[in-house]
Amino acid sequence: MSASPPSGSDAVPSGIDLARAWRLVLEATRVLPAEVVSIREALGRVLAEPVVAGRTLPPANASAMDGYAVRSTDVAGDGPVELAVAFEVAAGGSAPRPLGRGEAARIFTGAPLPEGADAVVRQEDAVRVGDRVRVEGPVPPGRDVRPAGEDVKEGDRVLDPGTRLLPAHVGFLASLGRTLVSVRRRPRVAIVSGGDELVEPDGDVSGGRIASSNSYSLHAQCLEVGAEPSYLGIARDTPEELEARLADGLAADVLVSSAGVSVGDRDFVRPVLEKLGCRICFHGVKLKPGYPVVFGRLPPPGPLVFGLPGNPVSAMVTFECLVRPALLRMQGVSRCFRPVVRAELSHDLEKRAGRLHLVRVQLDRGASGILATATGNQSSGVLRSMTLAQGLLLVPAEVTRIRKGEQALVWVIDPDFLAETGPAA
Amino acid sequence: MSASPPSGSDAVPSGIDLARAWRLVLEATRVLPAEVVSIREALGRVLAEPVVAGRTLPPANASAMDGYAVRSTDVAGDGPVELAVAFEVAAGGSAPRPLGRGEAARIFTGAPLPEGADAVVRQEDAVRVGDRVRVEGPVPPGRDVRPAGEDVKEGDRVLDPGTRLLPAHVGFLASLGRTLVSVRRRPRVAIVSGGDELVEPDGDVSGGRIASSNSYSLHAQCLEVGAEPSYLGIARDTPEELEARLADGLAADVLVSSAGVSVGDRDFVRPVLEKLGCRICFHGVKLKPGYPVVFGRLPPPGPLVFGLPGNPVSAMVTFECLVRPALLRMQGVSRCFRPVVRAELSHDLEKRAGRLHLVRVQLDRGASGILATATGNQSSGVLRSMTLAQGLLLVPAEVTRIRKGEQALVWVIDPDFLAETGPAA
Repeated sequence: MSASPPSGSDAVPSGIDLARAWRLVLEATRVLPAEVVSIREALGRVLAEPVVAGRTLPPANASAMDGYAVRSTDVAGDGPVELAVAFEVAAGGSAPRPLGRGEAARIFTGAPLPEGADAVVRQEDAVRVGDRVRVEGPVPPGRDVRPAGEDVKEGDRVLDPGTRLLPAHVGFLASLGRTLVSVRRRPRVAIVSGGDELVEPDGDVSGGRIASSNSYSLHAQCLEVGAEPSYLGIARDTPEELEARLADGLAADVLVSSAGVSVGDRDFVRPVLEKLGCRICFHGVKLKPGYPVVFGRLPPPGPLVFGLPGNPVSAMVTFECLVRPALLRMQGVSRCFRPVVRAELSHDLEKRAGRLHLVRVQLDRGASGILATATGNQSSGVLRSMTLAQGLLLVPAEVTRIRKGEQALVWVIDPDFLAETGPAA
Repeated sequence: MSASPPSGSDAVPSGIDLARAWRLVLEATRVLPAEVVSIREALGRVLAEPVVAGRTLPPANASAMDGYAVRSTDVAGDGPVELAVAFEVAAGGSAPRPLGRGEAARIFTGAPLPEGADAVVRQEDAVRVGDRVRVEGPVPPGRDVRPAGEDVKEGDRVLDPGTRLLPAHVGFLASLGRTLVSVRRRPRVAIVSGGDELVEPDGDVSGGRIASSNSYSLHAQCLEVGAEPSYLGIARDTPEELEARLADGLAADVLVSSAGVSVGDRDFVRPVLEKLGCRICFHGVKLKPGYPVVFGRLPPPGPLVFGLPGNPVSAMVTFECLVRPALLRMQGVSRCFRPVVRAELSHDLEKRAGRLHLVRVQLDRGASGILATATGNQSSGVLRSMTLAQGLLLVPAEVTRIRKGEQALVWVIDPDFLAETGPAA
């Protein structure tokens, strides 16, 4: 888990900056095939088909209110007019005959207008006396009528491929009679943890062993973006065991391991991946934390492979930087990067030049904007300071100091930070 | 589904503004009891307990790197020093004896430091020759050592109740050996649709019938905030059938119906709710769309009840305004309102004074900020214009005109709008 560059004995890019790493990852990332799902399960998925309306909505001129359907020419004047209530049209029903001159039809929201009628008088604007109704004019044609096709005409292309489905889209598909829809498949992610010192969280931690946490945080990071993680367990620090675990993940869309990517005697991830046929695209990105990250790919249909560093924060940050955008892109999501805010530092911050630092920060909204404060110990082993962070503050590679009061860009990793505690209206 | 105020024959507040409606809803809303879940399922849930660390992390001084554990006093000078490699400590292992003067121990990331050692020399900074290693000094004490308790000390209160669990929290709980955690229960929401004209989306829509869409959009709106919706079907427009359907929902935490809340002959929702023992807290909020919304509650442990209007956009908007914050609050989420942005209108907008209008808008980011454009037909029946909206623009009750170029507040209903299409770093 050293932060030094891996040795340069081959042509694999090493010590590259994050922008180049993104380009290499996204170039290697393909949108996944489509699958057909129930619209009940389609929320948040990305359409893989254009949706063409199979029906006109509303199918006929319909009442927008409970009241009386009228011929507007009968009530064109300023004064009150009395009309004979000829019949009733319920929602889901239909008129028995056209509406004649001097007639009104009792009508309910959503019911089709009788032939001849072209406006609706709301019931609260009408006075019913026996089989007659008194209406105050004038009532313009079209008043409280939803014309046929107001919403959709049959044959309209109403949704484009690439649309991410929100609740309104789900309801809209239902209104078109669509109960199934073709969407991009979710990526399946296989997760492997490495290390002789690791035990599962409910295991025995005596004698220097520590509970494996990366498989849990990476699993949750997958769920957060709609991927389907599966956990393949802890690989001990031997090439044989690591190979067996990683081989189990070759049927996934993405294989993510943590630990074993540096230059130590037991850092077997890269050689084992190469033995499995993985082409290494880069090894080492000028990030802190997270330098020794490895990215590669198996020949199609094999997975993309991310060998993340083993320190808990390094694993999460390299997932955030590289795996997360790939998982969203695979689902067809175009906005696959975190929301960014500009924040003012509440304290000085210094670092060495050379790597982009991602500093865990708490965000607070003040009168003059957003204030960012580092969440204590920034060691890549201290997960606690990650639990206190709403954002990752970006300190560019060449920058060595940001002074208190100066501004920097922050990736917002806690979506609640952007939400409001009180109503704004 | 009239938009007029319900008759004022009782003391139920009617024609109230949205701020008062919020107050009444949130006053009636209780945070739900806790339940214990696996940390694998805890993402996004809200902690119902304080988490106290049951162990110290790291449990002992540990190496942060692969390399050699040394006594810093042995390598305090500027020049190179040769040390005898006395033994090896693997991650998950322990040292056979204390480290003597002039000795080094081969050590791996995460392994406990031998007694006597107080620093680590990274292997790339050391030259190994047989059973000796040459180290360039000086090496300060503590270099590349993670001190015991750096992350957490046993007994520390490390997470507070009310914390919404992000991936880092999940990993952190695992590192503490916690596999189960107590979180607020998700609200169960029963959904009933009303209307003789409705059929399920795969049903026969001849003869003026229309496909029910509200149960689908409301279902998705529940899923979007982590609630557990169940759909109780379509109630025909009779008091008996409506009562039967609504009674089925009384075991839920929240009962949501759509349609039947206005002043029409068939608007039975309110009287049926009252018959079921529901206390109506308000009926009619000065909103457009969505005026005739009803809110009430059954005596505990009965549900909160929202009678939403039947028009598809009115149902969604009143859910957004009133049901959504309640569902988040029930889960213990404090930031229960949508993110708000300030946007510039791309066109004039006029309305009558009297109600808060929520205008469906497309949002675009321009050089001078965010531009909002109404998504066409704003009729409460036109769901299509809701599918095109990333936000709901708020036009306050008393405002009658906003001119092109002026600004207004917008609730962002499409979370992707806030995300980035390209990396910002």
